[in-house]
Amino acid sequence: MTEKRTELSTLGEFGLIERIAEKFVNIQSGTKLGIGDDAALISVPSGEQLVVSTDLLAEGIHFDLSFTPLHLLGYKAVAVNLSDIAAMNAVPRQILVSVALSNRFSLEAIDALYDGIKQACKEYNVDLIGGDTTSSRSGLVLSVTALGTQMPDRIVKRSGAKNGDLVCVTGDLGAAYLGLQILSREKKVFEVDPDMQPELNEDHTYLIQRQLKAEARTDLVYEFAEKNIVPTAMMDVSDGLASELLHICKQSNVGVHIFQDKLPIENVTRLAASEFGLSPVTCAMNGGEDYELLFTVKQEDYDNVMKLEDVSIIGVIRDASAGKKLVLNSGQSVEITAQGWQHF
Amino acid sequence: MTEKRTELSTLGEFGLIERIAEKFVNIQSGTKLGIGDDAALISVPSGEQLVVSTDLLAEGIHFDLSFTPLHLLGYKAVAVNLSDIAAMNAVPRQILVSVALSNRFSLEAIDALYDGIKQACKEYNVDLIGGDTTSSRSGLVLSVTALGTQMPDRIVKRSGAKNGDLVCVTGDLGAAYLGLQILSREKKVFEVDPDMQPELNEDHTYLIQRQLKAEARTDLVYEFAEKNIVPTAMMDVSDGLASELLHICKQSNVGVHIFQDKLPIENVTRLAASEFGLSPVTCAMNGGEDYELLFTVKQEDYDNVMKLEDVSIIGVIRDASAGKKLVLNSGQSVEITAQGWQHF
Repeated sequence: MTEKRTELSTLGEFGLIERIAEKFVNIQSGTKLGIGDDAALISVPSGEQLVVSTDLLAEGIHFDLSFTPLHLLGYKAVAVNLSDIAAMNAVPRQILVSVALSNRFSLEAIDALYDGIKQACKEYNVDLIGGDTTSSRSGLVLSVTALGTQMPDRIVKRSGAKNGDLVCVTGDLGAAYLGLQILSREKKVFEVDPDMQPELNEDHTYLIQRQLKAEARTDLVYEFAEKNIVPTAMMDVSDGLASELLHICKQSNVGVHIFQDKLPIENVTRLAASEFGLSPVTCAMNGGEDYELLFTVKQEDYDNVMKLEDVSIIGVIRDASAGKKLVLNSGQSVEITAQGWQHF
Repeated sequence: MTEKRTELSTLGEFGLIERIAEKFVNIQSGTKLGIGDDAALISVPSGEQLVVSTDLLAEGIHFDLSFTPLHLLGYKAVAVNLSDIAAMNAVPRQILVSVALSNRFSLEAIDALYDGIKQACKEYNVDLIGGDTTSSRSGLVLSVTALGTQMPDRIVKRSGAKNGDLVCVTGDLGAAYLGLQILSREKKVFEVDPDMQPELNEDHTYLIQRQLKAEARTDLVYEFAEKNIVPTAMMDVSDGLASELLHICKQSNVGVHIFQDKLPIENVTRLAASEFGLSPVTCAMNGGEDYELLFTVKQEDYDNVMKLEDVSIIGVIRDASAGKKLVLNSGQSVEITAQGWQHF
């Protein structure tokens, strides 16, 4: 079966921009002008602050196109940026997406990428208001800038955690990392024998989905508003829980105790970890790419937090002198260290 | 002479971010939180709209590091984005800069890049409030997002030009394109004989500077405010005057007559054009990368426009039926066509 392949050169840059613009309809009332001029125009709701974040995703570093469908890549590129907006407790409103790509990509491939971007815009209720398309000498590079808004007294930074605050995390941890291990293994098998069918079972589906189709926990922003909770500190789990905990501790000048038995790890994650000879706790602490929200709340918010769906209390903030510890089930404590991602 | 070379791996990503953050001090009162959290926080002046633009610059496509010093590249990457903000008649306030680079770049190289970015921030009075640093498998990629603000009734789009409006342009045209020709020629000579010294004369200095150190005409935004002028349409000249004229005509649904003898072309540009066997008019119309402002004003603003320094009136807006013509000195008219840049 040969798929249709239209060369980008048949459209040119302006033709490509028009084609992209036609796919998108603005829905945010704050979007005053979208794609098509030198810049986009936005009005920020009265009294609210603008929240801005940007990420650059490079082929071969952040994604491997041999096992990443382009529409999922487009979706994920948007979601991981909106995750940063949610991590400030802000409502995402608009995005700008720039793409550098070589002529090995066909128009159909670009359409798939933008279909994923569009799906994410719809899912998260944001407008694509601008960007840039250009060629690249080699790999695909995606740059996404996300804009959100929130009242200043509801914005949550990394620096507000205090001794005694409860440490909470949404969802479950470590699954995305194991999804990546499975995909990398199947790729190696495929490289050795291209006729080999991937050995995937149902359990793996969840893990792979967590890797390929990241979701931003913007639902929490609405839940916090509804339950009248303002976390004292928050960030999203992109580099791994350990790394993020250290950021909050550093910026809030506090310590933390996390309890191993409270870490939300799915059974499928535990099973896959043992398949790869990995510790599930290590996967949860250092795996990364979960895009869950890590946040701290005052103890008096305990009852309210218990009412939040899909949130686990995993530890407690301590004075800086108490250190940053993971309390194991054995009762022993180990120092939390960041492995994070070393890109360089 | 060997220059000092420190590997990026000695710092890691977080170390690099801290090093960059230390270089920059925020000066805009609207910048509420800069580098160091999941997102930056901005307050937009009451009643003003936010103006947002983003550009992606890729090595080998937008710049050639064999003749582009990194600090000038950093400066230019910022300036070309601020040019888009100025093209909406808005005041630039903040930027976000993302960089993807391979380990062939040393820490000293990154310092040079960010020194240029810092110099541009100082020159244009903007804050660097965020970004992303990551590795790349190959070339250097820069993504800059610029934010500005302006009252809605002073914002200028591409779509407001009307029959009878005067067509104006700042500065002079074609020089940046000839600067690129000179640099490319010298590179070829150097490739044949690395001991050969570049054959540059004083005239060439201006042209090369126009290519390597682009400036955004943000000064016009202040001049327009001072002289109480609001252009009817505006955009910046990045792809070439012809291409930009066609954009304004299309989006305003008008025609245009441009007069050859009114095109602002410096003598050094004319001389260099003849050296390369090129028509200076073609260089001015299709050269690109001038980053001057092209704008239209009502005829009643004629006296005010004459008071603007460094602005030429080059033509007049006509009904769409009158076409888009360049009126030559001979009295003949030729159709304006866009060559622009075909990246793909």
